[in-house]
Amino acid sequence: MIKIGIYGYGNLARGVEQAIKMNDDMELVAVFTRRDPSTVTIKTEGVEVASTKDVLSYKGKIDVLVICGGSATDLPEQTPALAKDFCVVDSFDTHAKVPTHFANVDAASKANGTTSLISTGWDPGMFSLNRAIMAAVLPNGKDYTFWGKGVSQGHSDALRRIEGVVDARQYTIPVESALERVRSGENPELTTREKHTRECFVVAPNEADHARIEKEIKEMPNYFSDYDTTVHFITLEELKRNHSGIPHGGFVIRSGVTSDECKHVIEYKLKLDSNPEFTGSVLIAYARAVYRLNKRGETGCKTVFDIAPKDLSSVSYEELLAHTL
Amino acid sequence: MIKIGIYGYGNLARGVEQAIKMNDDMELVAVFTRRDPSTVTIKTEGVEVASTKDVLSYKGKIDVLVICGGSATDLPEQTPALAKDFCVVDSFDTHAKVPTHFANVDAASKANGTTSLISTGWDPGMFSLNRAIMAAVLPNGKDYTFWGKGVSQGHSDALRRIEGVVDARQYTIPVESALERVRSGENPELTTREKHTRECFVVAPNEADHARIEKEIKEMPNYFSDYDTTVHFITLEELKRNHSGIPHGGFVIRSGVTSDECKHVIEYKLKLDSNPEFTGSVLIAYARAVYRLNKRGETGCKTVFDIAPKDLSSVSYEELLAHTL
Repeated sequence: MIKIGIYGYGNLARGVEQAIKMNDDMELVAVFTRRDPSTVTIKTEGVEVASTKDVLSYKGKIDVLVICGGSATDLPEQTPALAKDFCVVDSFDTHAKVPTHFANVDAASKANGTTSLISTGWDPGMFSLNRAIMAAVLPNGKDYTFWGKGVSQGHSDALRRIEGVVDARQYTIPVESALERVRSGENPELTTREKHTRECFVVAPNEADHARIEKEIKEMPNYFSDYDTTVHFITLEELKRNHSGIPHGGFVIRSGVTSDECKHVIEYKLKLDSNPEFTGSVLIAYARAVYRLNKRGETGCKTVFDIAPKDLSSVSYEELLAHTL
Repeated sequence: MIKIGIYGYGNLARGVEQAIKMNDDMELVAVFTRRDPSTVTIKTEGVEVASTKDVLSYKGKIDVLVICGGSATDLPEQTPALAKDFCVVDSFDTHAKVPTHFANVDAASKANGTTSLISTGWDPGMFSLNRAIMAAVLPNGKDYTFWGKGVSQGHSDALRRIEGVVDARQYTIPVESALERVRSGENPELTTREKHTRECFVVAPNEADHARIEKEIKEMPNYFSDYDTTVHFITLEELKRNHSGIPHGGFVIRSGVTSDECKHVIEYKLKLDSNPEFTGSVLIAYARAVYRLNKRGETGCKTVFDIAPKDLSSVSYEELLAHTL
């Protein structure tokens, strides 16, 4: 059994906890929280909830620690610090800061003989893996990533910060006609506006605010101004009834040529009922790989690019050859 | 530059030759043919065509030999024999005989310090890789593989063996409604007939033969009797004009759950204008990996399950981190 610890206990952590139950070779040892442990109830019976302050006392008792903090401020601190004493996996997703994060975690891991894997999940993660492999098998081409239809937590938060907004949910939606152009192998140049639309469901009880709120949303730089955005005002009850899930998904599509006559299109598509549960499942598959790499003495920081499929799989190599190849 | 040799010179070999031109780090050194080399013209200027009998004189001059024989009789002999003196890649696709082929090639490679990789292409190959990774990240689920729309060489050959048939082309077509049921996450049990249909374009100049030929096709065991098959009689000119390409493709779809409420669907899709050119491109990406593994001293037989994405890529790890992750 691979002994897993979960560091932090938000939505993603609950997804990781759920994923452990789906894997017979995995066992949850402890959940670490910044809150008072006595106030936190987890979904796995008989498993300890401990304070993050006490994590070091679990050194040697945990094979892989899955760090479930946020990318903005938590992970840049937590992952390098914890990589000194544990094999770790994280979902760091600030693409521009990956090289720095990698270097910090790699130094900590190499100095202490641990194995780390950063930036996994679905994007970065499954999508990155597919972008890399697609480009390798079809070098003369171009790839496109589309997200959605799904809930963007960051954009939903941005809506909630507007005065008069009680709650809100934002969906990122890929533009079907853009997807079709890419699938046709046309390799179009697409602007931000041409790739995705944004749909907002906003609870703002005072109707007099609606015009102003809609204007503020549509003009909000970075978040909405570069997109065709639609705004729907709904009641809190409607929001809870129809928009309480955290679905997401998306597409990586590469088209390329191997000769003048021959065009090829590769498409990888995800349709996820729950972003954190799927992300948690990916983290747990990579935790298995980290465990195996560490047993083989392969230390330092890794990413999805370093991991062979067999190390993700709970199935024996013989079975993979006989039934999956 | 990675020095490539091509062993055999049929459709797949021409696809490999084309793929080498798309990769800046690859160089074709020689093509080996069982025919009289003076009768074989290849598409790369200044490259030698040699007899397969003389292949051993190229030992040390070729980094990876891509073996382009057929799976039925060529590869079971050729790959283990050539793996004694060369790092090799093949596209062995008789799924049931993979474990035996693997064992034979592994023994030859390990005894001689070479690195081999068998059974790559798209199925087995890209599809196998996806089946393995999908199952690892979504263990509680079921996967489905659909092929087409595309030309099946084996089924086209079967048509040509019927008396009165001058030429023929067979397309394997996935059933759209079955695809939709799988995509919905229903996890249906599907019979052979429910998954694919077969469409035949047959040139048989004597109209009096048509009824018999159609009956023979539809009742042919293994090839057609388990499928809904349609037969079109066309002229040789029509066949040449409309059916001279070798397109193919298909789908791997896995749906699974992470909890009672949450279902997820992963889909990998290929749409290929030329089956041999795409397969050749995959072989060449894996030839790169074989070259690198051998340089690192990792010998023996490998499959797609052993290869980390970074070893397929012509891009540096730093660039992958910065731009692909």
